[in-house]
Amino acid sequence: MAASQPIPKTIYIGSFAHCISLNELEVCERGAIGVDEEGVIRFVERNVSNEEDIKLNFGEEWKDAKVVRLEGKGFFFPGFIDTHTHAPQHPNSGLFGKTTLLDWLTTYTFPLEASLSSLPKAHRIYTNFVSRTLSHGTTTCAYYATRHVPATNLLSSICLARGQRALVGRVCMDSLSPPYYRDASTASAVADSRACIEHTRRIDPSGTIVRPIVTPRFAPSCTAPCLAALGALAHETSSFIQTHISENHNEIALVKSLFPHSKSYTDVYDTANLLTPQTILAHAIHLSQDERDTIRARGAKISHCPASNTALTSGCCRVREYLDQGLTVGLGTDVSGGCSPSILEQVRQAIWTSRFVAMGGPGADQPDEKAKLSTCEALYLATRGGAEVVGLADKVGVFEVGREFDAQMVRLGVEVPEVEGESVQDSPVSLFSFESREEMVEKWVYSGDDRNCAVVWVRGRVVHKRKGVVV
Amino acid sequence: MAASQPIPKTIYIGSFAHCISLNELEVCERGAIGVDEEGVIRFVERNVSNEEDIKLNFGEEWKDAKVVRLEGKGFFFPGFIDTHTHAPQHPNSGLFGKTTLLDWLTTYTFPLEASLSSLPKAHRIYTNFVSRTLSHGTTTCAYYATRHVPATNLLSSICLARGQRALVGRVCMDSLSPPYYRDASTASAVADSRACIEHTRRIDPSGTIVRPIVTPRFAPSCTAPCLAALGALAHETSSFIQTHISENHNEIALVKSLFPHSKSYTDVYDTANLLTPQTILAHAIHLSQDERDTIRARGAKISHCPASNTALTSGCCRVREYLDQGLTVGLGTDVSGGCSPSILEQVRQAIWTSRFVAMGGPGADQPDEKAKLSTCEALYLATRGGAEVVGLADKVGVFEVGREFDAQMVRLGVEVPEVEGESVQDSPVSLFSFESREEMVEKWVYSGDDRNCAVVWVRGRVVHKRKGVVV
Repeated sequence: MAASQPIPKTIYIGSFAHCISLNELEVCERGAIGVDEEGVIRFVERNVSNEEDIKLNFGEEWKDAKVVRLEGKGFFFPGFIDTHTHAPQHPNSGLFGKTTLLDWLTTYTFPLEASLSSLPKAHRIYTNFVSRTLSHGTTTCAYYATRHVPATNLLSSICLARGQRALVGRVCMDSLSPPYYRDASTASAVADSRACIEHTRRIDPSGTIVRPIVTPRFAPSCTAPCLAALGALAHETSSFIQTHISENHNEIALVKSLFPHSKSYTDVYDTANLLTPQTILAHAIHLSQDERDTIRARGAKISHCPASNTALTSGCCRVREYLDQGLTVGLGTDVSGGCSPSILEQVRQAIWTSRFVAMGGPGADQPDEKAKLSTCEALYLATRGGAEVVGLADKVGVFEVGREFDAQMVRLGVEVPEVEGESVQDSPVSLFSFESREEMVEKWVYSGDDRNCAVVWVRGRVVHKRKGVVV
Repeated sequence: MAASQPIPKTIYIGSFAHCISLNELEVCERGAIGVDEEGVIRFVERNVSNEEDIKLNFGEEWKDAKVVRLEGKGFFFPGFIDTHTHAPQHPNSGLFGKTTLLDWLTTYTFPLEASLSSLPKAHRIYTNFVSRTLSHGTTTCAYYATRHVPATNLLSSICLARGQRALVGRVCMDSLSPPYYRDASTASAVADSRACIEHTRRIDPSGTIVRPIVTPRFAPSCTAPCLAALGALAHETSSFIQTHISENHNEIALVKSLFPHSKSYTDVYDTANLLTPQTILAHAIHLSQDERDTIRARGAKISHCPASNTALTSGCCRVREYLDQGLTVGLGTDVSGGCSPSILEQVRQAIWTSRFVAMGGPGADQPDEKAKLSTCEALYLATRGGAEVVGLADKVGVFEVGREFDAQMVRLGVEVPEVEGESVQDSPVSLFSFESREEMVEKWVYSGDDRNCAVVWVRGRVVHKRKGVVV
């Protein structure tokens, strides 16, 4: 298994970039990152002129270290963290028509998810989807599976085998769901969830790569007793929790009618003890100030899924405001509400959504500059923000001594030739000669795709390589 | 030159898709399109079972026709039409920070454009940009060049040599522009524009591939006499006209202050006789009803540039309303206000923008369904809408007898394997086994990129091929 293979001490030499803070992107031109046999970063050097000096500086134990050199234009970048996606919905990517949340669920989503009672089908979809997310540089992913125990366990096993860090959740739904796809009772929902938690803990006892996550689908598809039982299960097993909240207006109205005694959508979850520092709330678009305060007080985290929110016309999440109010936010692809498995695409979409917020005030003649996310802020959400959301804030997301090396090698391709010849097919990024390192990062963010993601590492282990790349 | 090479009669066999109308996408599974030596479509057959029958049906003259067969999953699709882009700004794609229009121009755009006084630099940028747009399936493009006559003429020559249909415009700007980058006088602006028109007419007298287009940059950078003289020049030379209009609020206020006697931004151009059936107006976001009526009455066309409008927070163009009011609309990449040279990306962005319009009504609790563009509508804008904008409504945009074969071969890649193995690197589209032909088009629209654009033809001539593709 990729995750447990022994690795040699390795020094990564070349440019690297990462977010020092929400507003500060460091782009280091001549860097060297030393990673030990456990995949832990032991040194991060800047302004390196000579790799022999590095080896000397760090003594005998690094003398024979392997060297991975980034050739050509590019940089090492922390692996992306996808804080919310639905692996079984992968085959529906791009199929949503003009639906909105509730009719989208019944038209597209439930029939496909139900079909994952077939384990060969689940195997085909999950294998491919994990390959896809890895190929886009996603080193950690919070997955919804389906309500099937065997298929959910299969997803955990695939992530472990491929070495992608994952939270894997069996979806619970005992209410308002179609007869062909629902939990028979609260008791069976809890028992099945427990079976998945036990499987995950058995195959990866330390939780280094895969961890279980208790997953009530969302308030409309769970009874109050089910929600409460899942809250208790999460506490009993010290599990993470993920669910959806406040995605669209019809859904919010539905929750109000189903839970008439709750103060708010947030209160439904709070009452069930589902809001904890280990809780990931997807969407969270239309939260009142009261709800935001509760979420912050409980330490629960938010997964912002901009592509999905736009595709399903759910709304524009006011992320800049949330950050200013001290909420913790990461990015999620929300496949197949979102049609891309790429967090880099979510970086762009988060920026576009923030610009629509900036343009959208009623009667506003000028964009509200404060609402705009900068490139750095969006990259922060994709890495360090995401790390906080999935409980890895001290482990990944930035290149610092003591953290683990979850990273991607970004290669931007060759420069546009001076005289003749094409260079357009291998990389979507066009480089001329004038770009600063910071501008290269900008070009990657706004034009790059998986073709620029040459190699991906989790804990220093290679978990993806583009064809033809040698490391 | 690609455009004038003789071609054999060719029959294109395989699926094809195109927009029959704004709301009707035809996806024909077993099609055959016969194209003669001039690149003109002579027959379009559906439900073809056997290519020998086709050859027999159409008689002796098709007996020895070349056959191009689309193997695997995919379809022929009309070439895309980019109704507005700036070739010299290509190196700045992705570099815009948090600027809006007016500071973006002075910070990023004018310095780069001015540097195209260097012909080798122009050659490098233009060669690469034409390659890029072709690789994304753009068969016709309305280009802004710079104010330099030699570089503008070079762009025309490159388009002709590569066989990409183009309108190429020398940019006029005799006011409010930096001293290092402006026309010395109205007379020199007109004389230089005339020189470019003459060059284009000389190298392609029929205008089949390249045509000149009179290009006042926009009202703020032209004096009223300059605008009037360019209107007269366009009439005298029967040229197309392109300019920008109503892109952002500061710009509109600036126009109001510069042209205090004009009723509106639109009126500034109307007064100068710049609104004709051969006029392309880029952006057109904040038009009053009066302005829309004037534009429609003059038969002028609109280039919708959604990616740029979002990136620069210019605003959300209400395209659905424009279509309902009988305005003619195509799509534009507006590089480098927009950061992608792909019209397929504009199809997506036009859909996202329409959804932001749908979500954006002040106090709206529910999205306004009417504002949403469908996938078909956006594809129509990218092909037939664009063809109307650039004066090729009767020539390209749909596969019909008598039209010319401007097309792309879309290949979606192999299906996700049933058992093991990856298929994620060659195509961004994931195909399982269940997709209908219509769903394949949807998957292409929402996940596809230039990797899916295998071959591109203009008038039956190959103008782009992915590496490794044989036709």
